[in-house]
Amino acid sequence: MTRFASGVSNLRSSQIRDLMSLATRPGIISFAGGMPGNELFPLAEMDEIYNDLTEREKQVAMQYGPTCGLPSLIESLNSYLKEKGLPVDTHKLLITTGSLQAINILANAFIDAGDSVITENPSFIGALSAFKSYSADIQTVDLDSDGISLEKLALKLDSMERKPKFLYITPTFHNPAGMLYSKERRIALIEMMKDRDIPVIEDDAYGDLYFYEDDLEDIRPMIAYPHEGVEICYTGSFSKIIGPGLRLGYMLVPPHIYDKCELIKQSVDACSPSFTQVIADKFIRSGAVKKYLNEVRQEYKLRAEAMHKALKSSMPEYVSWNKPQGGFYVWVKLPKGINSMSLLKPAIDKGVVFVAGSTFDPYAAKDDCLRISYCNTPVEVINKGVPIIAEAIKDAYKQLELK
Amino acid sequence: MTRFASGVSNLRSSQIRDLMSLATRPGIISFAGGMPGNELFPLAEMDEIYNDLTEREKQVAMQYGPTCGLPSLIESLNSYLKEKGLPVDTHKLLITTGSLQAINILANAFIDAGDSVITENPSFIGALSAFKSYSADIQTVDLDSDGISLEKLALKLDSMERKPKFLYITPTFHNPAGMLYSKERRIALIEMMKDRDIPVIEDDAYGDLYFYEDDLEDIRPMIAYPHEGVEICYTGSFSKIIGPGLRLGYMLVPPHIYDKCELIKQSVDACSPSFTQVIADKFIRSGAVKKYLNEVRQEYKLRAEAMHKALKSSMPEYVSWNKPQGGFYVWVKLPKGINSMSLLKPAIDKGVVFVAGSTFDPYAAKDDCLRISYCNTPVEVINKGVPIIAEAIKDAYKQLELK
Repeated sequence: MTRFASGVSNLRSSQIRDLMSLATRPGIISFAGGMPGNELFPLAEMDEIYNDLTEREKQVAMQYGPTCGLPSLIESLNSYLKEKGLPVDTHKLLITTGSLQAINILANAFIDAGDSVITENPSFIGALSAFKSYSADIQTVDLDSDGISLEKLALKLDSMERKPKFLYITPTFHNPAGMLYSKERRIALIEMMKDRDIPVIEDDAYGDLYFYEDDLEDIRPMIAYPHEGVEICYTGSFSKIIGPGLRLGYMLVPPHIYDKCELIKQSVDACSPSFTQVIADKFIRSGAVKKYLNEVRQEYKLRAEAMHKALKSSMPEYVSWNKPQGGFYVWVKLPKGINSMSLLKPAIDKGVVFVAGSTFDPYAAKDDCLRISYCNTPVEVINKGVPIIAEAIKDAYKQLELK
Repeated sequence: MTRFASGVSNLRSSQIRDLMSLATRPGIISFAGGMPGNELFPLAEMDEIYNDLTEREKQVAMQYGPTCGLPSLIESLNSYLKEKGLPVDTHKLLITTGSLQAINILANAFIDAGDSVITENPSFIGALSAFKSYSADIQTVDLDSDGISLEKLALKLDSMERKPKFLYITPTFHNPAGMLYSKERRIALIEMMKDRDIPVIEDDAYGDLYFYEDDLEDIRPMIAYPHEGVEICYTGSFSKIIGPGLRLGYMLVPPHIYDKCELIKQSVDACSPSFTQVIADKFIRSGAVKKYLNEVRQEYKLRAEAMHKALKSSMPEYVSWNKPQGGFYVWVKLPKGINSMSLLKPAIDKGVVFVAGSTFDPYAAKDDCLRISYCNTPVEVINKGVPIIAEAIKDAYKQLELK
């Protein structure tokens, strides 16, 4: 009956729902969520912004706005992105209702039923759902420690009968893999995609949450590099830099793609919430965003380092993971023979929930990793929860040896 | 390349954009908009609500919420709708990002490319765009003074080779036709659709904006009538009862349709803005909504009556229109030989903008009416603007006679 129902298995959706309900069970330690910690929101700044709004600004906040976004927010966001080196003069900004909507609209613009697209494996589940909802054939390419494997990508491209409609990647603080594409990989990927007429969707929801100034060169978005011959559609989010409840994101895309996307957005929800756009604009314009980001970066860094330390002291030697440099996630690699889904129940029984790795594989096949996030759990909870996962892994390993 | 681009003509979209830019040109009198007047928004109530929020409530406002909507808003909206006689016990509520999103998600759930749907002619342009974006074949049925013509609907249904996926209607204070289905027509339509397995989408964005208590019986939504054997999907909006800038709407639908729509919403924008949901919840819960609606009803009624009076005193006898009983619009019928689009340029040159009737025909063919809205213009502006449209019509009529 629907493209969507045929694309997304109900099993997976109900599984996610179960996880979500467990993740909020009183007393359980959740490393499952991908949301900022409640205690980290800039409530005082919000209050100040709201109470400083003029009557006229409040009227704008209550009214419909242009489909592309409020002019004032587009202006301030343009400056913010320009400062980061993004090509705001040659590309156009479209404000969206969260960055998932940006990805969804791009998918709508590019995909006709049955078209192929390429994603990383693992990949962001929201994007996978969106692509499936347009009946895309999702082809995947593995990551290595520097980013998407160029060798495997070349093989994939050569093996495909019809050109894929786009390549979707998350080069910076990957969800779920936590990793960061190296500068070299970014440049080599642009070179490889040159003149192929396959747009690249660069999802950068986490780029502002770097922990180490030394990485600044590495997290420079691909769209900020010279990329003649490759169309890059960049998507970003306000969810990690202010709060997801504002439901604001954006895309920065070549003008002809923008035109299509604006038309689609018009029929999707007419415009994004003016109310939260007014607030986001003030948050950027006042400079509060930079101050706030400095604070949350410090806090997430603390949590990430605590998680890395807890993993080091509790995990057996046959388990490995990335040392987080930013973002929300650690991607824990399990030894051969143990799959992540089988650990979920024992871990939950002991009071900890995470997300099984196969959740991030469009075919739910690869299950040799698990995702634990530190974004939403204070250090003492991390120290309590990580050893419990380690125990579950060790138990499974023992049983494996007994077989 | 995209389903959407093939569905919506760029001409029409650019025409709307031109209109929109003219409608906001300084000094021009605009009867084109479908937005509430800026001066009518409940800013004082918003301030009070915002400043009374607890820290915990503000955290909820900043965070992701459930895809279906915040539990507290679902609870308060359920009560609000129950009081209006809506079947909240047998149907399920899904909060959406504006009611256009509710219509778009239903379209996504029901339509596969090439499927037919039936709408009224004229019909809400946002819905038409959404249906076109899923490559629907849109079949239309004319309205008469009591609602959709049952005779023509029966002929249409008999003539169609494949069953349409749904019937989309706006029985209460129609956009653009301004009219109200009679009680008898509502009941007869339910009877006619019985056991046909064609769901009815009942769009009720304007139902709360009635002007006369006597009409209360007539505006009772179709979903509130017994309707065994007909699946009714009801959509509503917060745009007219608080403000469009909140981007909140909802659908009240049978459970099995709800399940599909919730899955779709998950991949569209994950959830609607928590920030504005928290505020909308308080607005309903505190009773402010009722007080506010009483106030705006009075103001819109004043404007509507002024417009009716201005039309009576300035329009020639060969022009007719509905006397508005609620909502935002008057639908002005032109004499044979004059089309609405041809009046637009002369009217704009004289300083008034409206929306040409053909805008609301999915095939841009029927153009014997024009839509003027009184929602966004104070009485003195209405009194100044309506005679200008009358002049443009009289001029066109004279030229018609000279031919």
